[in-house]
Amino acid sequence: MTRFDPRDPDFESRVRTSFARQGFMTTLGARLAHVAPGEVDIHVDHGESLTQQHGYFHAGVTASIADSAAGYAAMSLFAPGFGVLTSEFKINLLNPAQGPLLVAEGRVVKPGKLLCICKADVYGGDSRAHVATGLFTMVAREGLDD
Amino acid sequence: MTRFDPRDPDFESRVRTSFARQGFMTTLGARLAHVAPGEVDIHVDHGESLTQQHGYFHAGVTASIADSAAGYAAMSLFAPGFGVLTSEFKINLLNPAQGPLLVAEGRVVKPGKLLCICKADVYGGDSRAHVATGLFTMVAREGLDD
Amino acid sequence: MTRFDPRDPDFESRVRTSFARQGFMTTLGARLAHVAPGEVDIHVDHGESLTQQHGYFHAGVTASIADSAAGYAAMSLFAPGFGVLTSEFKINLLNPAQGPLLVAEGRVVKPGKLLCICKADVYGGDSRAHVATGLFTMVAREGLDD
Amino acid sequence: MTRFDPRDPDFESRVRTSFARQGFMTTLGARLAHVAPGEVDIHVDHGESLTQQHGYFHAGVTASIADSAAGYAAMSLFAPGFGVLTSEFKINLLNPAQGPLLVAEGRVVKPGKLLCICKADVYGGDSRAHVATGLFTMVAREGLDD
Repeated sequence: MTRFDPRDPDFESRVRTSFARQGFMTTLGARLAHVAPGEVDIHVDHGESLTQQHGYFHAGVTASIADSAAGYAAMSLFAPGFGVLTSEFKINLLNPAQGPLLVAEGRVVKPGKLLCICKADVYGGDSRAHVATGLFTMVAREGLDD
Repeated sequence: MTRFDPRDPDFESRVRTSFARQGFMTTLGARLAHVAPGEVDIHVDHGESLTQQHGYFHAGVTASIADSAAGYAAMSLFAPGFGVLTSEFKINLLNPAQGPLLVAEGRVVKPGKLLCICKADVYGGDSRAHVATGLFTMVAREGLDD
Repeated sequence: MTRFDPRDPDFESRVRTSFARQGFMTTLGARLAHVAPGEVDIHVDHGESLTQQHGYFHAGVTASIADSAAGYAAMSLFAPGFGVLTSEFKINLLNPAQGPLLVAEGRVVKPGKLLCICKADVYGGDSRAHVATGLFTMVAREGLDD
Repeated sequence: MTRFDPRDPDFESRVRTSFARQGFMTTLGARLAHVAPGEVDIHVDHGESLTQQHGYFHAGVTASIADSAAGYAAMSLFAPGFGVLTSEFKINLLNPAQGPLLVAEGRVVKPGKLLCICKADVYGGDSRAHVATGLFTMVAREGLDD
């Protein structure tokens, strides 16, 4: 794994402030479990409010925390004053997303001034099964609020 | 647009029953606005609980209702006794997902006994902007509860 | 289908000149069959040199002409002096890619100064079956040769 | 990296025989550089016949060898009598695909009887830059010729 140098020494507080503004992460009960340059992990506990029809985490929950983990992994490398937007992503769902805990690990694959390519892997279940893997294109937008 | 013949005349009630079991759709305040063979629309109202850091719908909300719309579009064509699972999807976010209403239109592109390829387009904002477009691979699984 | 206004009245000659420089399109025997603002079609004839193990067009051929069709659809809307690069794409293969003719239709979905989102559909066989559908992110790069 | 047990002890000869039947791989000058259970590498030399308009390998070449590497990685784990088809893939192009050598490394992420999820990474240039990364859904089809 390549290590990245952040352009902004205050990257962690910017990531945490922005995350706290995502009302949807609060709705999911999601929390930032790890923030490092180019690396962000998000955790979510299982509950009936997050399920699909068979009782597993909904694919949308898996995708949502994978997206936020990848987006904040990207933003951790942006210069001050640049916000992050998701341009596109693709995700493969590999195993049923079981509780009690869903873990998304977002990692930067290729940093860039305007585009940042990330991946995210999601794990769940008692045996930490590989629930999903995805690729994300994140855009740095100047003047966008964190 | 090709029209499809459902294998199960009761497809609509199966779709509605399964949708009602998705706790996550309730959490989003999502509702089935249209159910026809190979076609399902889902609507969600804007609210602070669904936002990303700039106040728009979170990309995860957009992806979640696109995924459910595509999945139930697929399931509407399945034989009785076959449930639906998302295998993978890819989504491009084209414009900010603004309220008051987010509309996902799931459509079957290529039906199949085991795999069903779908697309979904999402619209939002006062002028019904094109918020997102995605491609989905859905799997029919026998013996899976609806 | 939205109609687009080209930023460069000479878009067609720029597209044709650039296409002629793609040695790989010559290798495939590919030709530009349609060039309009935001729209490019590419045709390829079947031959043993383009096959996978069952005699159909290789998925790589399908993806290659879909990528070039989408890329030149994007470039047709770029200002003079901007070249095109593919950032990423996703393609679903829907039916066997049969001869005698493979047709890729690239269309711009969302134009932009830096990013241009496109789709491409590919058709083949005597009955013009829907062989593939894909989504593409194209990047406009200033100072890049056509 | 998980190690996989092949269902067919003759997997390597089946992979090599099928690869030899892909006329398109011959056209690209592609060769199998590594075949192991769940792992296939493909190499291609740079030449003008494989270029896009700026002289790099065309994205279609990158995608083509990534697709074949991923497909044969999947097939290496299939039972005898099952052929492989690509259902869909997504690829991010990270750096210009420079010669002299393009290397695609296909790896199985999640094996399955019917669906096999794979990834492929492509490297090129003197410094072995990371040219592309992709995710693939492969289908096992009984009775399909190798």
